[in-house]
Amino acid sequence: MAQKITLQQFESVFPKLQEALLEHAKKYNLPQEQLDWYKKSLEINTLGGKCNRGMSVPDSVSLLLGRPLTEEEYFQSATLGWMTELLQAFFLVSDDIMDSSITRRGKPCWYRQEGVGMIAINDAFMLEAAIYTLLKKYFRTHPAYVDLIELFQETTFQTEIGQLCDLLTAPEDVVNLDNFSMEKYRFIVIYKTAYYSFYLPVALALYQLNIATPQNLKSAEDILIPLGEYFQIQDDYLDNFGLPEHIGKIGTDIMDNKCSWLVNQALSIVTPEQRKVLEDNYGHKDKDKEAAVKNLYNELQLERLYQEYEEKRVGEIRELISKVDESEGLKRGVFETFLSKIYKRSK
Amino acid sequence: MAQKITLQQFESVFPKLQEALLEHAKKYNLPQEQLDWYKKSLEINTLGGKCNRGMSVPDSVSLLLGRPLTEEEYFQSATLGWMTELLQAFFLVSDDIMDSSITRRGKPCWYRQEGVGMIAINDAFMLEAAIYTLLKKYFRTHPAYVDLIELFQETTFQTEIGQLCDLLTAPEDVVNLDNFSMEKYRFIVIYKTAYYSFYLPVALALYQLNIATPQNLKSAEDILIPLGEYFQIQDDYLDNFGLPEHIGKIGTDIMDNKCSWLVNQALSIVTPEQRKVLEDNYGHKDKDKEAAVKNLYNELQLERLYQEYEEKRVGEIRELISKVDESEGLKRGVFETFLSKIYKRSK
Repeated sequence: MAQKITLQQFESVFPKLQEALLEHAKKYNLPQEQLDWYKKSLEINTLGGKCNRGMSVPDSVSLLLGRPLTEEEYFQSATLGWMTELLQAFFLVSDDIMDSSITRRGKPCWYRQEGVGMIAINDAFMLEAAIYTLLKKYFRTHPAYVDLIELFQETTFQTEIGQLCDLLTAPEDVVNLDNFSMEKYRFIVIYKTAYYSFYLPVALALYQLNIATPQNLKSAEDILIPLGEYFQIQDDYLDNFGLPEHIGKIGTDIMDNKCSWLVNQALSIVTPEQRKVLEDNYGHKDKDKEAAVKNLYNELQLERLYQEYEEKRVGEIRELISKVDESEGLKRGVFETFLSKIYKRSK
Repeated sequence: MAQKITLQQFESVFPKLQEALLEHAKKYNLPQEQLDWYKKSLEINTLGGKCNRGMSVPDSVSLLLGRPLTEEEYFQSATLGWMTELLQAFFLVSDDIMDSSITRRGKPCWYRQEGVGMIAINDAFMLEAAIYTLLKKYFRTHPAYVDLIELFQETTFQTEIGQLCDLLTAPEDVVNLDNFSMEKYRFIVIYKTAYYSFYLPVALALYQLNIATPQNLKSAEDILIPLGEYFQIQDDYLDNFGLPEHIGKIGTDIMDNKCSWLVNQALSIVTPEQRKVLEDNYGHKDKDKEAAVKNLYNELQLERLYQEYEEKRVGEIRELISKVDESEGLKRGVFETFLSKIYKRSK
C-alpha cells in the first residue's frame, strides 16, 4: 500500500536542503550579511504554502511503487518536491512584482518587505538557481540527471510563455475585452499553471524511478494538462462563486481585469447589451462596477454552466484515466488521487 | 595562424539563432503577438553591444587550434559566444530595473520602453531560458553537453551572488561608507563581472574543443579572474579619470554611490578630516558635492596609485601567463590576447 505524507513530514526535509544550499554559497566566500539574506529569502519565499505540488512527488512515487518509501527514496522524492516549490517560489516572487500584488500567504509580498524592493528580482533568480544546485548535489549520478535538468528548463520556459501571454492579454491598467478569448485563456492556463503544477511533479516521480518512458510521459501529459486546466477553471469559478470563508480570501478577479474563465465564458454568450455591461464595468477597482458584473454573471447562469462543464470534463478525465496503459510501470492511482483532491473542492 | 573575427561576422550568426529560438517557441503554439514580443526583446536586448564577450569564444577557439576555423567550428563557437551575450542580456535587463537605470547603449532601458515596464522581468527570464534552448538544440550530442549546462548554471549563480553583494553594499538611496571595504569590492568584482566576462568565454572554448581538463580550467581561472578584476578596476578608474570623448559617457560613480575601486582606495588612506569630506559628499546627485570628491581624489593622488597598481598587476599577470603549461592543449596566446586588449586602454 502506498503511503501519503503529511505537510509536517515534507517540511522536515527543508532544513537539510537549505543547509546544503547555504554550504554551497559559503564555498564562494559569500559574506555573512549576504548569506543571512539568502537564508531569509529561501525561508520566506519557499516555506509557508500548502506544498501541494511538492508533496505530490513523494505521494506519486509511493503510489507508483505501491508501498511506503524507504528513507532514501523518500528523501530523493521530497528533494524533487522541494525543487518544484523552489520553482514556484521563483515565479511567485517575480509575478508579485509584475502584478503589483500586495500580499502573499497573508504577509506582505517579498518585494514589499522592509529593505527588499527590487532586490527581490535577484532573489527570484537565486531561488531558480537553487534548483540546479540541489539537482547537481543529489542527482549528479542518477541515470536521469540530464532529463531532470531538461525537464526543469522546459517547464520553466513553458511557465514563462504562459506568463508572457497573461501579461500581454490582461495588463492591469488597460481594460480591453477584445484581448480576451477562450483560446488565449486556455494557452495561459495550460502553460502558466498546468505544466509546472500538475505534469512536473508526476514526470519527476517517473524519472526518479527510471520509468519515464515516452509512453508514460505522454499518458501523464495527456491526463494532467486537462486536469490542470480544470483546476484553474475551478479556481476562477471559486473566485466569484466560492465562499470567502472556504477559499480564505475575497475574490478580486473582476476588479483586477483578470482573463478569467468566467469573463471568457460570458463573452462567448452575451447579447450586445450585456457586452456593454461588461465593457463598462469589468476591470475597475470599484465595488459598484464589480457588483454589476456579478449580476450579469448570475443572469447568464455561469454557475450552472460551470457545473455542466465540470461534470463533462471530469467524465472525460475519468475516461482517460481508465485507459491508462500500466504495462510500463505507470499506475492509474496516481491520477485518481490528483482528481479526487480536486473534484468538487470548495477551497 | 589564428584568425580574429569581426563584429559583422559575429552578428551574422544571430539571425539563425533567433530563428531557432522562435521556431522553438512556435512549437508551443505561442500566439503571434507574444512571438513578436519575444523577437523584439531578443533583438533589442541582445544586439547592439560591442560583443567583446561573445566574440572572445571564436577568437579563443581559433587561438587554441592555431588556425582559422572551419564553418562548423565557427558556427559552434559563435553560438556559444551568443549564449554569453544572452546571459549578459538577462543580467543587464534585470540590473537596469534593480539599479533604476535610465539608458542602456544609448537608448532607454528595456523596462523603460513603451508598454514594457515590469514585463521586462519575465523577458529577462526568457533570455536566460534561451541559453538552454540553444544548448539543447546545438550541443545535445556534444561530449561536454552536461559540463556546458553546469558551467552556465554555475556562472549564473556566481554573477547573482556578486549582484546581491553589490545591491546590499551600495544601495542607491542609503549612503554609508562603513559598508564599503576592499574585501567586499573584490568579491563583487570577481563574482559580478570577472567570471561571466572573462572565465566563461575561455572555459566554453575549452569545452567546445574537449580540452577542458581540470588543469586547463584551473589555469584559465587563475589568470582570467585577476585579469577581470584588473579590467573592472580600470573601468572604475576611467569613470573618473578617463576622457568622456574616449569612454563614450560621463562617469557618475561618485553621484551614484558606487562601491568603486577609487572610493575604497581613498577610504584606506584618508585622514579623519578627508574621510569627513567623503562622508559629506559621496553618493549625492549634486555637482558641487561630486566636485569635492573629485578634488579629494586628486589630493590623494589616486591617478598615480592606479598607475602603480596597473603596472604591478599587469606584471603579475604576465608572470602567470608565462608559466602556463601548454601540454594539455591550452595556449598562452589566449591570455596574451585578452591582456593586450585591456592594457592601458582609454575606453
